[in-house]
Amino acid sequence: MPEFRQNFVTKEWVIIASERAKRPDQMSTGLEPRPQPPAFREDCPFCPGHEDRTPPPVMVSEQGGQWAVRVVPNKFAALRSDERPCREQNGPFLRAGGFGIAEVVIESPHHDVTLETLPLGRVELVLRAFRSRHLAIASDPRINLVSIFRNYGPLAGTSLEHPHSQIIATPIVPPHVRDPWRHAQLHFDTTGRCAYCEMVEGELAARVRVLVETPHFVSFVPYAAKTPFETRIYPKRHHASFSWASDAEVADLAKVLRDTLQRMRLGLRNPDYNFIIRSAGSGDEDVRHLHWYLVIIPKITTPAGFEIGSGIYINTVAPEGAAEYLRGVQTDA
Amino acid sequence: MPEFRQNFVTKEWVIIASERAKRPDQMSTGLEPRPQPPAFREDCPFCPGHEDRTPPPVMVSEQGGQWAVRVVPNKFAALRSDERPCREQNGPFLRAGGFGIAEVVIESPHHDVTLETLPLGRVELVLRAFRSRHLAIASDPRINLVSIFRNYGPLAGTSLEHPHSQIIATPIVPPHVRDPWRHAQLHFDTTGRCAYCEMVEGELAARVRVLVETPHFVSFVPYAAKTPFETRIYPKRHHASFSWASDAEVADLAKVLRDTLQRMRLGLRNPDYNFIIRSAGSGDEDVRHLHWYLVIIPKITTPAGFEIGSGIYINTVAPEGAAEYLRGVQTDA
Repeated sequence: MPEFRQNFVTKEWVIIASERAKRPDQMSTGLEPRPQPPAFREDCPFCPGHEDRTPPPVMVSEQGGQWAVRVVPNKFAALRSDERPCREQNGPFLRAGGFGIAEVVIESPHHDVTLETLPLGRVELVLRAFRSRHLAIASDPRINLVSIFRNYGPLAGTSLEHPHSQIIATPIVPPHVRDPWRHAQLHFDTTGRCAYCEMVEGELAARVRVLVETPHFVSFVPYAAKTPFETRIYPKRHHASFSWASDAEVADLAKVLRDTLQRMRLGLRNPDYNFIIRSAGSGDEDVRHLHWYLVIIPKITTPAGFEIGSGIYINTVAPEGAAEYLRGVQTDA
Repeated sequence: MPEFRQNFVTKEWVIIASERAKRPDQMSTGLEPRPQPPAFREDCPFCPGHEDRTPPPVMVSEQGGQWAVRVVPNKFAALRSDERPCREQNGPFLRAGGFGIAEVVIESPHHDVTLETLPLGRVELVLRAFRSRHLAIASDPRINLVSIFRNYGPLAGTSLEHPHSQIIATPIVPPHVRDPWRHAQLHFDTTGRCAYCEMVEGELAARVRVLVETPHFVSFVPYAAKTPFETRIYPKRHHASFSWASDAEVADLAKVLRDTLQRMRLGLRNPDYNFIIRSAGSGDEDVRHLHWYLVIIPKITTPAGFEIGSGIYINTVAPEGAAEYLRGVQTDA
């Protein structure tokens, strides 16, 4: 029987209508079988030896005498660091200069790997680069929000094969980000508790949607998942900003993230996906009502008019079934 | 130069970064060239002679002794009219029975037409069916929101070729719908004016983004369009609910909608698209701060991690350029 479920924090509703689903291993996940990329491409700006095809790096991590992670300004950025963020109102039309900071995190010199197939230590280096850049960029007084995300595959919005993530930092905190925070704040003011912490405790107690649990993190398919196999990774320790994650947490996150992504890769036949780190805005790093997390969205279904119009997603795979299926996948983690 | 723009009503921000765009007529719009469907398919449940493959119609419009529009319950609905809308809270987990009303509007007996290629009188019949069903369904005391939408093509979420639209009515008004209304209400309480009316007046005064204007309607590419060629059709007369549209307005809307969709079909090479009628919820039909409209979203680009995470869309086609391009397309309207 179909049912509505509500996200405890954001108050968003979804419809879980799993009768319409195919078996998980029969799901279309886009372009399959995905061809294995070559280890090096002459025309790839991120492959080693082509360092002059990107702007100079803002950060480099080395290992064994070679770069392991390079963070470079995005050459094709939608925002520019030399624009001014001033706003101008003209009747009902409000604009602001396209100021922002856009960087690319090149996750490996090897063209043919991806985050979930990298060795654990390398994944940790990538996450350390995320944290380091998050900290540095958020301290720019013109920046109010730092978004870190990964687009994997064309359905997720990238055609660039070389393993990479992106950072886009904006002077603007949009309603899509602010509105859920307002709900979380009201919850805190009403109950004295972080709504995210309560949700994580609820998932840990119920245990039916949990994928991976480690000392510092838990990954689960949330109760009100919007799309099939949507998975979230929450730190157990309450804190609002990813940039305050400790070294031990970053190392542990590498493990959970790699394991969770491997389950999707092996269980769902290497789907395209987005992941996003949702973290408090600049200056809100210490607020008590927010809690950072990472959400992974495999691109398996297409939102249609109903989803776009109402924001109510129809999820054809019950989160409990999705979690059970992914728990059964063997990883090397 | 890129710039941020804000939607006057919803306070959503977009980034207009048109330097990255291709020419409009070079845009990839999915599956092209789309094969012309046959006039009749033996395996199509909506083709004439197959009326017994759908549940009995809730409404039929006839013309020339044959049905012209049939509205039938959706056989594969994500929601069921025999479920109960009761809500149950269990710790942080809130659910409600999957009650709702889901109908399909079969827009023509002919398999090979679509809304924008139908004769004008036929489009009017379809819109009359929308209005009639909207009125009837919204009067059910269990229903609080009626969504009317059209999915055209696989990128828009349908694989069914036969021309059709859908109606899904829910007991739930989700934050995605309610939050913009709250902004509109605050604007009304502050200024005494409908924010949508002000925006429409602003677009009519600026004139650079208008596509089609008729006595009752105006269609334009909005100042803060989220995606390339997003187009909206607003009634000039202030009213909150589509269900209160007059006969003259419905006839006029048929004209504007058909003309606007033809411009996309011919100018953008028959793209997949969604359209959605956004209208006040049940009981809110007369509120002074809401204003119904129709939004058309051609599926030309893929939202990626940044859009999903921040809700800030990067639009690579300036709305002014999109409008100029579509204005230049010759239609038979």
